[in-house]
Amino acid sequence: MEEKKCNVLFRVEGGEDVSVFAFLGESLLDAARRANLALDAPCAGNGSCGKCRVKLLAGTVKSGPDRHVSPREFAEGQRLACTSLVISDIEVQVSGTALAYRDRIKVSGRGAARERNIFRALQKNLREMGLERDSGLELAAVKLEDPKNGDPTADRERLLRKIAAQTGLAREDIGFSLHALRRIPQALRQADFSLLCVLRREGAGREEGSKTGITVMDVFPGNASPPPVIAGLAIDIGTTTVSALMADLLSGEILTTGSAGNGQIRYGADVISRIIESTRPGGLERLRSAVTEECVAPLIRDMSETAGLRPENIYRIAVAANTTMTHLFMGVSPEYLRLEPYVPAFFESGPLKSAGLNLGAHPDADVLIAPAIGSYVGGDISAGVFASMIFKKETLSLFVDLGTNGELALGNSEFIMSCACSAGPAFEGGDISCGMRATDGAIEACRVNKGTLEPVITVVGAMDQKPIGICGSGLIDLIGELFRCGIINAKGKFIKEGKRIRRDEWGMAGYVAAFAEDTAGGRDVVLSEPDIDNFIRAKGAIFSAIRTMLAVLDFDVGAIEDVYVAGGIGGGINMQQAIRIGMLPNLPLKKYRYIGNSSMHGAFAMLTARRAGEMISGISRGMTYLELSSHPGYMDEFVAACFLPHTNGALFEQAE
Amino acid sequence: MEEKKCNVLFRVEGGEDVSVFAFLGESLLDAARRANLALDAPCAGNGSCGKCRVKLLAGTVKSGPDRHVSPREFAEGQRLACTSLVISDIEVQVSGTALAYRDRIKVSGRGAARERNIFRALQKNLREMGLERDSGLELAAVKLEDPKNGDPTADRERLLRKIAAQTGLAREDIGFSLHALRRIPQALRQADFSLLCVLRREGAGREEGSKTGITVMDVFPGNASPPPVIAGLAIDIGTTTVSALMADLLSGEILTTGSAGNGQIRYGADVISRIIESTRPGGLERLRSAVTEECVAPLIRDMSETAGLRPENIYRIAVAANTTMTHLFMGVSPEYLRLEPYVPAFFESGPLKSAGLNLGAHPDADVLIAPAIGSYVGGDISAGVFASMIFKKETLSLFVDLGTNGELALGNSEFIMSCACSAGPAFEGGDISCGMRATDGAIEACRVNKGTLEPVITVVGAMDQKPIGICGSGLIDLIGELFRCGIINAKGKFIKEGKRIRRDEWGMAGYVAAFAEDTAGGRDVVLSEPDIDNFIRAKGAIFSAIRTMLAVLDFDVGAIEDVYVAGGIGGGINMQQAIRIGMLPNLPLKKYRYIGNSSMHGAFAMLTARRAGEMISGISRGMTYLELSSHPGYMDEFVAACFLPHTNGALFEQAE
Repeated sequence: MEEKKCNVLFRVEGGEDVSVFAFLGESLLDAARRANLALDAPCAGNGSCGKCRVKLLAGTVKSGPDRHVSPREFAEGQRLACTSLVISDIEVQVSGTALAYRDRIKVSGRGAARERNIFRALQKNLREMGLERDSGLELAAVKLEDPKNGDPTADRERLLRKIAAQTGLAREDIGFSLHALRRIPQALRQADFSLLCVLRREGAGREEGSKTGITVMDVFPGNASPPPVIAGLAIDIGTTTVSALMADLLSGEILTTGSAGNGQIRYGADVISRIIESTRPGGLERLRSAVTEECVAPLIRDMSETAGLRPENIYRIAVAANTTMTHLFMGVSPEYLRLEPYVPAFFESGPLKSAGLNLGAHPDADVLIAPAIGSYVGGDISAGVFASMIFKKETLSLFVDLGTNGELALGNSEFIMSCACSAGPAFEGGDISCGMRATDGAIEACRVNKGTLEPVITVVGAMDQKPIGICGSGLIDLIGELFRCGIINAKGKFIKEGKRIRRDEWGMAGYVAAFAEDTAGGRDVVLSEPDIDNFIRAKGAIFSAIRTMLAVLDFDVGAIEDVYVAGGIGGGINMQQAIRIGMLPNLPLKKYRYIGNSSMHGAFAMLTARRAGEMISGISRGMTYLELSSHPGYMDEFVAACFLPHTNGALFEQAE
Repeated sequence: MEEKKCNVLFRVEGGEDVSVFAFLGESLLDAARRANLALDAPCAGNGSCGKCRVKLLAGTVKSGPDRHVSPREFAEGQRLACTSLVISDIEVQVSGTALAYRDRIKVSGRGAARERNIFRALQKNLREMGLERDSGLELAAVKLEDPKNGDPTADRERLLRKIAAQTGLAREDIGFSLHALRRIPQALRQADFSLLCVLRREGAGREEGSKTGITVMDVFPGNASPPPVIAGLAIDIGTTTVSALMADLLSGEILTTGSAGNGQIRYGADVISRIIESTRPGGLERLRSAVTEECVAPLIRDMSETAGLRPENIYRIAVAANTTMTHLFMGVSPEYLRLEPYVPAFFESGPLKSAGLNLGAHPDADVLIAPAIGSYVGGDISAGVFASMIFKKETLSLFVDLGTNGELALGNSEFIMSCACSAGPAFEGGDISCGMRATDGAIEACRVNKGTLEPVITVVGAMDQKPIGICGSGLIDLIGELFRCGIINAKGKFIKEGKRIRRDEWGMAGYVAAFAEDTAGGRDVVLSEPDIDNFIRAKGAIFSAIRTMLAVLDFDVGAIEDVYVAGGIGGGINMQQAIRIGMLPNLPLKKYRYIGNSSMHGAFAMLTARRAGEMISGISRGMTYLELSSHPGYMDEFVAACFLPHTNGALFEQAE
């Protein structure tokens, strides 16, 4: 790369122009990243996903047509940013979503009724296990005497004396957050020296007789109206999606839910790309801030606003994420996760403070991180396994979390083994040309008529929502249907022709799930052979991981009594289709249960019941971890599973 | 004030221009403050001190000549910024020091030999009291086995296991600072899995059997060269001056010393002006950042650099300051300190963390705040009283801290009473037209020939340093000499004429301590009657406070066995002169001892010996506080003391 610089002007659809200098020969994608423009590039810029499409308006880039950009599109100026090298000053048009990490944040008030029901059920489960609601936080009313001439005792010391008397604690076991100290003088004098204090009990949750104490986290005037809310936040940091839930820690009520795309996506779709990026100069900090300052902090701000609170009213936070995401969120290098012998920097971290992580919540809010089990089986799984309750059952259960990083656990109340496989982002719509997250406009379910080959689709959103793309659950359905109707063969290749079936100039076939005129984007929603290839690899990774674990533990598949399928991949999974395509084992449907975002549910349990956190730590320490990548049999299993449903058809004989 | 705005261009001598918009009718001083220009304005902008002089280059301001600006000077464009109201676009020249809060920071390597000796003596004192060096911090060498395939235990967990074995602590009593977690993976692999760990013992300093634990604060490769230093910082935050000292907490060696003008000076010279400013919109945050981001944090940065360390190598900080400064440093409103019944927000704060205070040191460094005793007797005095050791003596001692806020303590091992009086900034050179801090160019001592009236002066700095102004110790000397030579009378008015005595157009007389041609600034160094007036009020405040305390406790002045005079007012005080002018009581000179910056010495003790902090808390809780402003006899005593030496000459009969 020479030192000569070119000026790149990004014209953002519906937004402000952004300009940046690019080195001669630098890719447009790298230039866009430096300009903080988030061009979707799930393949990390190696030209394979075709998502980073831009339109050249002026100037010259070095590039050519490829399988993602047809000669006609190329002539119109369409380019992939990752394969276009800057060789002059240029002007390009980029999609409005490039500016949209902030805008992509979706806050949903109190969340869908269905979601609220899941959490109500979870809280009931926790109570039945003897895990009462206990975040360690409480609200205490305190009334002081007015200060008088002749008694110049300071506000804090008078309050301390009173709290010591009310709690029976020694004065030296009562501390004050700086945030509270700053608020005491005004709050005291707004309500005639009566206060409402947010107290946090320290240590008491651990063991009987262990050290205890109280921190005064915040103070409000005694007559504050509405009365102060002690809010807490559960966060699930996925490789692709960040989800959060805000709850009132005293009542257990859900206040708001929200989600955002993980801002790290512009550095690659899977954890390996992120780890590689983190080892580049400044990369670790770029990735840390992409998830924190760009996603989590704004989510906290927006969700607080929706709930009518200030971010400082969040006094406790629980985070569940895979091992790489946890490292990056904390600003710890994940470099050695991908180098033999695959050692994480930490499994557990102890409680951190919100201020140290730049979250913008109460600066002294405890941030609890769900403990990891292995390099690629993280806190999302220890939290998810807890939420699935498989550790309570004597019979054998399988737990499957479908995400960019597919994670599995197999076990019962005696033992649990876990493993991870790199499924890639297909379940969340990544690496699929028409793929998308399970938000408005996503095709989440689909039936195909075997005679006419015409589809009937279900779309996320309002009644009249037109489709934009396909999310994970829709992909499982559609591929299952194409296979069932004999449109594609066991290798995922098209073997029928028809109005819905297209072939491009390279001979690649695809199925048009929605014609341009019926879509919200005005572009055909097409599932192509390369998309199906990507999806088959994803489902193959999951199935071969299940097979390998069963083999290592010497169990027959029939020994599995319950299968819990988790993941935020859509409105639920059609288990029959998942079995049909060979993603999940051929077991009676009644053994299957879709349990949603179990990582978030586990984080919620940690948030609201301190003993749940201890139990999750206990689960994580007791789980064994199977490193698939160094297991000799796995690769053969994977290759065998990259068919519909499998090279060994006998495994799925009863499926049709 | 109308909404029309004018442009003000400040041409800073020897620096870059700064421009700002000013409202029509706004004072130039307010405009300068918004532009973050620090025009000295110890009188808080009420036109009395004459320090905020600027030169009008273009445009019009509303103002007139006054006692600070002669008609000739006015014709030349000289103006006071505080009394000049902006009524057009203007251009003014301001002194280079306006930009100089950053530059005024002075870092002195390992400090003067004299200072190092004081600290060596202090450390000896502490040892003799059984206060061994014990900051709770230690450096531990740990060697781990190389991670192996088949044992995927994370770095932190392997380190935890080893530290638990080495210390005998349970694993749950060992925590990790996020800073340390972030450094573990690289540090481990730089020296073949051997580490040097900075450990902080928690709680153990308090009582036998109280809760203990360890926090891993930092890690370094086992072969780090030079070996890591565990540095600590003692800070004295004065109303006028901030001083700091960096020490190696393991060896006790002093690494660097430094000082800076308190950036709050532009909001007024005394604590009352600062409290008033703090109640204006945004004022509290302006004052907080003026002392923190403008002074303490840059001091930490510069001192670390001089010591060859990184700011994160500072693991423990102790701060002593008066009550108002402590509130402002912590961002807590001091509003109720000046409203009856004069109640501080807190006496003690518990240890805070560096990150919460934005100091830029190790984010989890404990910041210990010396406890306050009353609204105007702060942690500087509890720390200073400790350093003076008066609480160890059976005989009666007087402790006097000469600062902008004059603070006193009287007592012995049985009791100690304290009080405060607003001496104003005269001891630190404020409110005196030729006054300055005790830095290079300050006249720190002076003799006047009774016959010729010619002075002999001693100047701070190199051998050939020419005088610029007069610091506190020089003022005591000069006023004492003028009085001894019969040049001024008991009211401080000039009663002799001569070459050195000047009268201005208003008939105000002054003594020329140095003629323009002999000075570094090219301007006469003149001590005028208004200056002497200000100084007499300052010394009167001190003396009347001493008298009032003696009266309240029913002691004769002769009962005082030792007088400890503290304060950073110059190279020492000529006690004989201080008695001559009626500032200190007429006791044998051998009873007097100048002990320098005792507040800093107390902070140093807290920093290096945890039990010293407990003893200082004990002292502060045991001290009684006399509120002079509400004591009936004080005002009469003050009026009587505003003479040289006193209206009751009998009190000082042996002084001449």
